[in-house]
Amino acid sequence: MPTHPISRYAVPTLNDLPQDLREMMLKVQEKAGFIPNVFLTLAHRPDECRAFFAYHDALMLRESGLTKAEKEMIVVATSGVNHCLYCVVAHGAILRIYAKNPRIADQIAVDHRKADLGPRQRAMLDFAVKLARAPETLDEADRQKLLDQGFSEEDVWDIGGITAFFALSNRMAHLIAMRPNDEFFLLGRVPPPPKK
Amino acid sequence: MPTHPISRYAVPTLNDLPQDLREMMLKVQEKAGFIPNVFLTLAHRPDECRAFFAYHDALMLRESGLTKAEKEMIVVATSGVNHCLYCVVAHGAILRIYAKNPRIADQIAVDHRKADLGPRQRAMLDFAVKLARAPETLDEADRQKLLDQGFSEEDVWDIGGITAFFALSNRMAHLIAMRPNDEFFLLGRVPPPPKK
Amino acid sequence: MPTHPISRYAVPTLNDLPQDLREMMLKVQEKAGFIPNVFLTLAHRPDECRAFFAYHDALMLRESGLTKAEKEMIVVATSGVNHCLYCVVAHGAILRIYAKNPRIADQIAVDHRKADLGPRQRAMLDFAVKLARAPETLDEADRQKLLDQGFSEEDVWDIGGITAFFALSNRMAHLIAMRPNDEFFLLGRVPPPPKK
Amino acid sequence: MPTHPISRYAVPTLNDLPQDLREMMLKVQEKAGFIPNVFLTLAHRPDECRAFFAYHDALMLRESGLTKAEKEMIVVATSGVNHCLYCVVAHGAILRIYAKNPRIADQIAVDHRKADLGPRQRAMLDFAVKLARAPETLDEADRQKLLDQGFSEEDVWDIGGITAFFALSNRMAHLIAMRPNDEFFLLGRVPPPPKK
Amino acid sequence: MPTHPISRYAVPTLNDLPQDLREMMLKVQEKAGFIPNVFLTLAHRPDECRAFFAYHDALMLRESGLTKAEKEMIVVATSGVNHCLYCVVAHGAILRIYAKNPRIADQIAVDHRKADLGPRQRAMLDFAVKLARAPETLDEADRQKLLDQGFSEEDVWDIGGITAFFALSNRMAHLIAMRPNDEFFLLGRVPPPPKK
Amino acid sequence: MPTHPISRYAVPTLNDLPQDLREMMLKVQEKAGFIPNVFLTLAHRPDECRAFFAYHDALMLRESGLTKAEKEMIVVATSGVNHCLYCVVAHGAILRIYAKNPRIADQIAVDHRKADLGPRQRAMLDFAVKLARAPETLDEADRQKLLDQGFSEEDVWDIGGITAFFALSNRMAHLIAMRPNDEFFLLGRVPPPPKK
Repeated sequence: MPTHPISRYAVPTLNDLPQDLREMMLKVQEKAGFIPNVFLTLAHRPDECRAFFAYHDALMLRESGLTKAEKEMIVVATSGVNHCLYCVVAHGAILRIYAKNPRIADQIAVDHRKADLGPRQRAMLDFAVKLARAPETLDEADRQKLLDQGFSEEDVWDIGGITAFFALSNRMAHLIAMRPNDEFFLLGRVPPPPKK
Repeated sequence: MPTHPISRYAVPTLNDLPQDLREMMLKVQEKAGFIPNVFLTLAHRPDECRAFFAYHDALMLRESGLTKAEKEMIVVATSGVNHCLYCVVAHGAILRIYAKNPRIADQIAVDHRKADLGPRQRAMLDFAVKLARAPETLDEADRQKLLDQGFSEEDVWDIGGITAFFALSNRMAHLIAMRPNDEFFLLGRVPPPPKK
Repeated sequence: MPTHPISRYAVPTLNDLPQDLREMMLKVQEKAGFIPNVFLTLAHRPDECRAFFAYHDALMLRESGLTKAEKEMIVVATSGVNHCLYCVVAHGAILRIYAKNPRIADQIAVDHRKADLGPRQRAMLDFAVKLARAPETLDEADRQKLLDQGFSEEDVWDIGGITAFFALSNRMAHLIAMRPNDEFFLLGRVPPPPKK
Repeated sequence: MPTHPISRYAVPTLNDLPQDLREMMLKVQEKAGFIPNVFLTLAHRPDECRAFFAYHDALMLRESGLTKAEKEMIVVATSGVNHCLYCVVAHGAILRIYAKNPRIADQIAVDHRKADLGPRQRAMLDFAVKLARAPETLDEADRQKLLDQGFSEEDVWDIGGITAFFALSNRMAHLIAMRPNDEFFLLGRVPPPPKK
Repeated sequence: MPTHPISRYAVPTLNDLPQDLREMMLKVQEKAGFIPNVFLTLAHRPDECRAFFAYHDALMLRESGLTKAEKEMIVVATSGVNHCLYCVVAHGAILRIYAKNPRIADQIAVDHRKADLGPRQRAMLDFAVKLARAPETLDEADRQKLLDQGFSEEDVWDIGGITAFFALSNRMAHLIAMRPNDEFFLLGRVPPPPKK
Repeated sequence: MPTHPISRYAVPTLNDLPQDLREMMLKVQEKAGFIPNVFLTLAHRPDECRAFFAYHDALMLRESGLTKAEKEMIVVATSGVNHCLYCVVAHGAILRIYAKNPRIADQIAVDHRKADLGPRQRAMLDFAVKLARAPETLDEADRQKLLDQGFSEEDVWDIGGITAFFALSNRMAHLIAMRPNDEFFLLGRVPPPPKK
């Protein structure tokens, strides 16, 4: 079987990159053990790449009423309905790690309604999936359901903002046929051996 | 997080089962190391269960112009667009094993167009996904595309028949909220250690 | 105007058939006066054919909280939204006979919401049509609506199981372009003359 | 089972009608043997009723490159995809009579792609169904396919105009839950006895 | 950039028109300052043209529980979801004038849910848009929501009737690629200078 | 009629803003004569706001094979199918100015297929609209159509990147019910008086 390249566009080497992007990538490589393809493939256009990660970090690293795992659930659920291979696989790995749950990412990617979630997270993903695929139908009643589950107005912005950002991200991945690193497929599936 | 039961309906124990179904399950348990939940949950209705597996075996075990891996690709692709958690996870595991490829199932479940497939398998899955979701739009032109890829008329029946059978299977899984066994999530992802 | 054949595939003659299938067909012929094309066309593959009718009978002949007419209503409604000519015409005939109503099948095939049905049957068909076309959206709330109408849990399985089986059946009919027997179009439309 | 009324709105009696509408209805009654419910139910609003039938006659009675049967095929196919019970049943009867074919209406109402039609009529109905359900997607290429089948520019207007008129008609029928006369269900299904 | 003609079909000159249509057009020209293209382009077929405007006037000029502006809101909202350029632009202009509001037409054409409307008009447009795009899903519950907002049964007919008529109108415009007069784009956007 | 606020969230005043954002807004105010609401409403979250405009400028101000007007066409077409009021109205104004064409924005927002465009721009918008609404269906064949029209690979990235960015932008606007400034509705519709 053929193996597709990681992008339809030329991918810069670390040496070709502007200093700031190279440093960003070396940092993520040090932390993760490899450079996720989203960094290298989007670096084909340095200015857009910088803005992409600035936006990503502003949303995903922000103090929030959502846990880190909940933020990744939104990414996986909306990328699932958008059929985005890169984001489902890469963020599925991150979700497994944050949630310390080897099955939750596959559950949410396929059908968040059948996933092992309580009513709060179910409502969160119902809202996100609706905004992802039929944004014009989102209405005050949808917001109210989130508030009824105890989400704050700022939490609603987080849920919607992450959904909106990955609407962009999913489309960039489809545009360039971004391929997930092989490493992501297995990450977080096997619990680490107990420390002695 | 809550853990959903494996079915919305009562699940028989092995002891409660009619002799023939118990033997079928013991046999699969011996081979696989565990009993896939589709056996136990559908055994809630023994007659339907027998017919289900007779149909499954008639299609999936039949000599065919399709490889075993290709048959499972059809299951995974159509279950993906039908958002069927059980079938994506369980048959994704089987596909990884048959294809000896730890990534192909996730690729196909999310978006078969971006998977590592050649034109023959791409055409096969285009046909299957169309029949799965918009069966009335399937036309002679769609059949011709398969014949052009070298599939025989009987191969086309196989592709359509598997798609049709899993249209049933996916709906039963949604109806009873069938949960995949935990084992399936990891199967086929890690290559076995080399034999000495 | 051209007349399409009854299948895109070779159709066996009675003499070519394995003994058990020939006997099944002769029995149905004796009862109905003709052999419905679904028998002959699916007999192109004897093993799948046997499993198909075993499954059909397990669901349709089973003692149930649904009447025979209600079961056929589900077939006609879901085959209608799946645009399956064979099943709408053949099961429409059976429905007319069971319901002793010459108009109910056309009503349900075109738009079950406008058919002469009470709230119980309306709820039953709403559930079936949703499972037929958008199975992933089926939720606990949909099940609850059926229970509220007095359906038992087993009745819900029947409704869903029949819908699932005809999801398969409709796709086989689309795959092979199965043509309904001419007889079905008129059956049950004219009340039999009164006996003297 | 309940029997729905022929309209959600008050239906005038012949005596209540303005002279011109009463005469129109008596004329159709004389010809058909009964007054189709579309006349009586729309007469709830005489001015709209007059315009409705003026428009209908301008399109349907006009000399055309389409046969009378072909015009009714367009009505039945587009009313089928619009799930309009009144128009499928009433115009299905008329189509059976014009085409002298007891099966063609059911075939077209359920799935025009499987009906006993040649390429000219198949192209005609593909165009009509697309205009009926997704009018914005109709493009020059769609028109060209009709011209390629030998339809004239005026024929294309006829096909589109009939589709457009029944887009209105189907919606009025859904709005008032217009019920087809019982007579229509059987009309044209049984060939008349041969004349001596 | 190319400028498309006002119709794909021949457009009659005033002199070529039958007397009654010419008079109708001169009258509208006197009032509006120009002849809207819908008159000239549909006059390609005089009989259909007469019926079209008779129907239009019966609905739009009728005394009603809806204001003139509300009727035009229905036209603009349903033409928006039908992506009909002529009707959005021409009736958008009329709506701006009737509502004395230079922004309401653009708001409604793009997304009636975000427009400056109260609950009565929001309910009216929810109903209309549903009937326009998915007529078979319209149900008693939808009618009840209108009655709950204080609309009478006759008002519901008006809302549905206007939606139905513009379902026809939108499709004719798509069929012939009807182009709005340049004048409409600006009408009603700039308040007239105050009178001295 | 009620007038909705410009956002569902608190909108900072210029004085409350961080220095850099205040300067950005004063600069745009000097140039445009007013501050577009997208600046003020997104400034509710300064970090996301900075990233948003950095991304916007990287795409929209970049040297490109697309003209400035073509870039705005993509924004208007995709915001139209996403039913985003803010972006259709605000970027419609900008498009009218860049294209020096008072009608092109309304044409594209309602139905780009009927707009006054040549084949190059038609192909560009077909691609963008597909990526906007059904990103998973975008395929090599779609890219090839753009290359066939003379677009370079980098132009394709521009088209896809702008579509992706406004997928985000449209969803943020739906999330907070962002309201366009009144000024945008009229901008670019009336040609400026000739200079003496």
